[in-house]
Amino acid sequence: MIIVMRPGATVEEQQGVKKRLEREGFNIHFSQGVERTIIGVIGDKTRLRWETLAAMPGVEKVVPILQPYKLVSRDFQPEDSIVQVKDLYVGGPQVQIIAGPCAVEGRSQLIETALAVREAGATMLRGGAYKPRTSPYSFQGLAAKGLELLAEAREKSGLPVVTEVTDKELVAEVAEVADVLQIGSRNMQNFALLQAVGRVSKPVLLKRGLSATIEEWLLAAEYIFSEGNSQVILCERGIRTFETYTRNTLDLSAVPAVKHLSHLPVIVDPSHGTGLSYMIAPMARAALAAGADGLMVEVHPTPAEALSDGPQSLTPEQFAAMVKELSPIISASRREMGGATS
Amino acid sequence: MIIVMRPGATVEEQQGVKKRLEREGFNIHFSQGVERTIIGVIGDKTRLRWETLAAMPGVEKVVPILQPYKLVSRDFQPEDSIVQVKDLYVGGPQVQIIAGPCAVEGRSQLIETALAVREAGATMLRGGAYKPRTSPYSFQGLAAKGLELLAEAREKSGLPVVTEVTDKELVAEVAEVADVLQIGSRNMQNFALLQAVGRVSKPVLLKRGLSATIEEWLLAAEYIFSEGNSQVILCERGIRTFETYTRNTLDLSAVPAVKHLSHLPVIVDPSHGTGLSYMIAPMARAALAAGADGLMVEVHPTPAEALSDGPQSLTPEQFAAMVKELSPIISASRREMGGATS
Amino acid sequence: MIIVMRPGATVEEQQGVKKRLEREGFNIHFSQGVERTIIGVIGDKTRLRWETLAAMPGVEKVVPILQPYKLVSRDFQPEDSIVQVKDLYVGGPQVQIIAGPCAVEGRSQLIETALAVREAGATMLRGGAYKPRTSPYSFQGLAAKGLELLAEAREKSGLPVVTEVTDKELVAEVAEVADVLQIGSRNMQNFALLQAVGRVSKPVLLKRGLSATIEEWLLAAEYIFSEGNSQVILCERGIRTFETYTRNTLDLSAVPAVKHLSHLPVIVDPSHGTGLSYMIAPMARAALAAGADGLMVEVHPTPAEALSDGPQSLTPEQFAAMVKELSPIISASRREMGGATS
Amino acid sequence: MIIVMRPGATVEEQQGVKKRLEREGFNIHFSQGVERTIIGVIGDKTRLRWETLAAMPGVEKVVPILQPYKLVSRDFQPEDSIVQVKDLYVGGPQVQIIAGPCAVEGRSQLIETALAVREAGATMLRGGAYKPRTSPYSFQGLAAKGLELLAEAREKSGLPVVTEVTDKELVAEVAEVADVLQIGSRNMQNFALLQAVGRVSKPVLLKRGLSATIEEWLLAAEYIFSEGNSQVILCERGIRTFETYTRNTLDLSAVPAVKHLSHLPVIVDPSHGTGLSYMIAPMARAALAAGADGLMVEVHPTPAEALSDGPQSLTPEQFAAMVKELSPIISASRREMGGATS
Repeated sequence: MIIVMRPGATVEEQQGVKKRLEREGFNIHFSQGVERTIIGVIGDKTRLRWETLAAMPGVEKVVPILQPYKLVSRDFQPEDSIVQVKDLYVGGPQVQIIAGPCAVEGRSQLIETALAVREAGATMLRGGAYKPRTSPYSFQGLAAKGLELLAEAREKSGLPVVTEVTDKELVAEVAEVADVLQIGSRNMQNFALLQAVGRVSKPVLLKRGLSATIEEWLLAAEYIFSEGNSQVILCERGIRTFETYTRNTLDLSAVPAVKHLSHLPVIVDPSHGTGLSYMIAPMARAALAAGADGLMVEVHPTPAEALSDGPQSLTPEQFAAMVKELSPIISASRREMGGATS
Repeated sequence: MIIVMRPGATVEEQQGVKKRLEREGFNIHFSQGVERTIIGVIGDKTRLRWETLAAMPGVEKVVPILQPYKLVSRDFQPEDSIVQVKDLYVGGPQVQIIAGPCAVEGRSQLIETALAVREAGATMLRGGAYKPRTSPYSFQGLAAKGLELLAEAREKSGLPVVTEVTDKELVAEVAEVADVLQIGSRNMQNFALLQAVGRVSKPVLLKRGLSATIEEWLLAAEYIFSEGNSQVILCERGIRTFETYTRNTLDLSAVPAVKHLSHLPVIVDPSHGTGLSYMIAPMARAALAAGADGLMVEVHPTPAEALSDGPQSLTPEQFAAMVKELSPIISASRREMGGATS
Repeated sequence: MIIVMRPGATVEEQQGVKKRLEREGFNIHFSQGVERTIIGVIGDKTRLRWETLAAMPGVEKVVPILQPYKLVSRDFQPEDSIVQVKDLYVGGPQVQIIAGPCAVEGRSQLIETALAVREAGATMLRGGAYKPRTSPYSFQGLAAKGLELLAEAREKSGLPVVTEVTDKELVAEVAEVADVLQIGSRNMQNFALLQAVGRVSKPVLLKRGLSATIEEWLLAAEYIFSEGNSQVILCERGIRTFETYTRNTLDLSAVPAVKHLSHLPVIVDPSHGTGLSYMIAPMARAALAAGADGLMVEVHPTPAEALSDGPQSLTPEQFAAMVKELSPIISASRREMGGATS
Repeated sequence: MIIVMRPGATVEEQQGVKKRLEREGFNIHFSQGVERTIIGVIGDKTRLRWETLAAMPGVEKVVPILQPYKLVSRDFQPEDSIVQVKDLYVGGPQVQIIAGPCAVEGRSQLIETALAVREAGATMLRGGAYKPRTSPYSFQGLAAKGLELLAEAREKSGLPVVTEVTDKELVAEVAEVADVLQIGSRNMQNFALLQAVGRVSKPVLLKRGLSATIEEWLLAAEYIFSEGNSQVILCERGIRTFETYTRNTLDLSAVPAVKHLSHLPVIVDPSHGTGLSYMIAPMARAALAAGADGLMVEVHPTPAEALSDGPQSLTPEQFAAMVKELSPIISASRREMGGATS
């Protein structure tokens, strides 16, 4: 941590900062510049606590040097984490493709989609039973009934199930069915929920918040780790910017960023990331070329009848065509198409 | 709702849209333009449901005409809502000033601050017992012990208490002490929590999400209304933009916007909105001049020792000086300084 | 400047940085932390040049300590700058109100508006002769003819004229008529133009760019200063954010920020800042309460017939009503309504 | 165009809008909804002009239906445009790679880089002679001397030259040397400059503005087209968002968006788009997988000595390694590596 003093800060003010830091057990270095005095602080481990030093008399600003997260950082663990989902691996040589409807709407819609996406090459099934919706008047999901249908679809298709949990209270119920617990964008900083999924032994898919920095996203993962669960898969799904042509701006640079800063696997959701069905195939290819460990794609048998996210859903035929085009990109990226190792 | 067809949309595609809308009971008008066919739909009440029409063959885009919220809109209730907090009124002629520490840290810190801010002119006390923090390593609040101290501070100071509730499960516990339940920025779209506070009979202070549009904010208020609680106070606290000099960008135009679109009262939090103590007084004046119904300001006896948000906290002396400067602005805005009507 | 070395940076890499800095004449301090080595550099004057050090082997990041601007900084000149426009002063106790149409459209439109806004209390006249427009098919301004009309309007109304210059080549021509040369948002980083207005002896009104940080804005002012012209008035006019309800997001915190970092006067344009006529009066009041030195407001005799910016223009009657409501706010802010000192 | 009337708009207000539109030669359709009256306008060609209708009494909002650009739209020209640069083609089956230093700094730096990037597979040379810099104290480029060196480098390497023109006045001078005239981000809305390059017969590389929407970017291209030059190549180079880890946020969804809305070729600049050298290779791969027609990459023999943009420059070795990794992605995307057709 570096403390920059105001021009004209008095000796008393400098001594005040010095005394406080020494009282807390830090070593410090004074560096008297031409226009500013700078104080280097050695030994800070938990940076955020110390930002309050900025409120001390004579202090102009506090510049943190270390990253605020530990367990999820690549400094802490240099080798890649690989998360196991039943007999699949996320973060290893294989690329996993998660597909399915935005929301579970009914038995035939779900089963039909599950079988079709498996046939086309998907390795996991997605589908929301509990749906967080911007408006109280939108379809809110089938809840417990939706979970039942997901269990049935898994049985029929053999695909592991990824589904969202929207509230701490629902974690146990959802964890009974889900193979991967999804934390949605809007809940990325619902810390009570993060701590709750940190205490179960199921993998967690952590979507980046709509306006979360990469640092905040990794801190959210740190919440889950710090409760004991290190099976975390990150998911980039677009951030909010001034551009309104796309629903969000898919930030693919987050893929190499996360791989650089952290050891966690990261997948990409081009459906929410763009909101436009014609963009999903090119952005899926781009995501894998950028190094993503997998994809999450919305597929619906009849998008125009979907109860949510129709305009960004692919039909099963469009999905199958997209997967076919992914193959050469996956090979070009020196990865393999996912699937159970046999 | 307006449906814009693609150039070259076939007659079959147009008939497909027509049939679906008629099946749902709508009247429609065709309008054949030079380059596009446009279909006007009469009778839509719940706009969001219909956005999936954008996924129908031949449809280029769907343009909603009506606002997606109802109960909180000024169309629905033309006169201003006034929210009563014990013997105070938010949204009427009086301007209310909520002040206190970011977090409750201990007995003397809280009581001392409560008495000082009351003396200076504050009409309510704020203080967090449950704190949502970006890092798992930051101070997380005193929880139940913090609520106890808030109750004691209310007794000693006579000020009603505003405190945050961070999880659905805590609503009952917090509501026992709080006079106003605060929903923080990060939870503005925690819909389970919104529904839970919608079922209690305490006023709710709903902070705008970090990257929430005004429409999404009003939809969050609609969630609370739709469960039966219409005692909602909105609070603008800065949005996330590219500018990093300030912690957030305080969007004061949200004040006239909300007054135009909705009947709800709105207050402003210049502490989180700027993150810099030197800006709080000028932005507080600006907020009231823009028509805000009140302010929420962080005050700490020794900001440099604060466990959170030190750099944006005022000392009690700075707070008193600020309130003095607000008086003429309040008069100039044809409002009165708040206080119990006697 | 602080240089943070990577964890595991070798002794050779550290020596490489040391040698380079010493070769350039700097003193350096090594500070060996637990996880990182940090190098403090004493004597940097021109920070930006040194950011390339970040590309040296072993360097993790370079943290600049000093502001990159000098002449416009409050460190350099502690007392406020006051800019004289004929017999008016911007930045002193008086608040100046600049009003007029977005574009000069014709003789009667301009003269009528000039007389009306003067009558209502405006102290300067605005009006665009050269208009930068997003579309090549929009009205592009009357050019030289527009300047002529502005000169005539000045003669008739006695109000000094503020008008935009959009290209380096036009500076001499516009400067012959204008009392203040306006640099528009889109040209805030047109450095050739900034240098050109830096070489004339007319005051310059420098609008903040659509997505310019406060630092970039002050650097743009520094360009003008560095060519010899220190008569610069800043103008906040809204920044681009994710919120689309308003045309831009008016960042009033820029007012205290600029006052803190710089000695330059700053005014606010609530017309472009919001894009909605109903918001202009409340945001004008807020701007003055925040400490702005003046306002710039669009007024048109018949907004619905305006060739540009109709929806954000006030009628002369609305403008007069707004000015009346500003008076008590100006007094409450310990300022006076502008006007020629007599 | 659709005009939405306010609830409670009077018959006179509706008639006022009707009369004005009929006076202008439009056909209109009235559509009386439950809560709003909507007026459909047939025959609008130049949408922007009509936005002023929003200022008419009784009008709530105006919803444009058509895109505001014409010549660059895919509606206007369904087949892809291919831009010829000497014997290379941009927008056809071949992918072109433009590489070179940010700024021309000297003879040996430039020639050495030109030969190295050609060897590695680049098909055009970039290098700035005129540099727009945020600070007046940064290196501003070698100007005319830089152009001379570029001409020499072209002769030595055989690579066509892409270089930036920063001011209308310099267009003729730069066009004498450049094979492609680059319009930088900060000048995307310098309309005088756009018109000037619209009048020369050289291809133009138009970079997206820092905070430009896709619509504004295409309108900037329309400015060039409307002056007669249809040799425009678009270049995505990152937009400004709240995320500060990367210098900008590279918006790769702009590639399919532009291909959908327009017939123009589009390339991607991952150097400015990310600002971090470790991200350039993965984002270059992603750009091509998303369908980009080429890349623009900064290469410097000794990045740590670069006078600008060192931290985002690749060494010639890193560049050569990156190009090698691009080959399989290009094949997987059914394109070929660029080069003179022979």
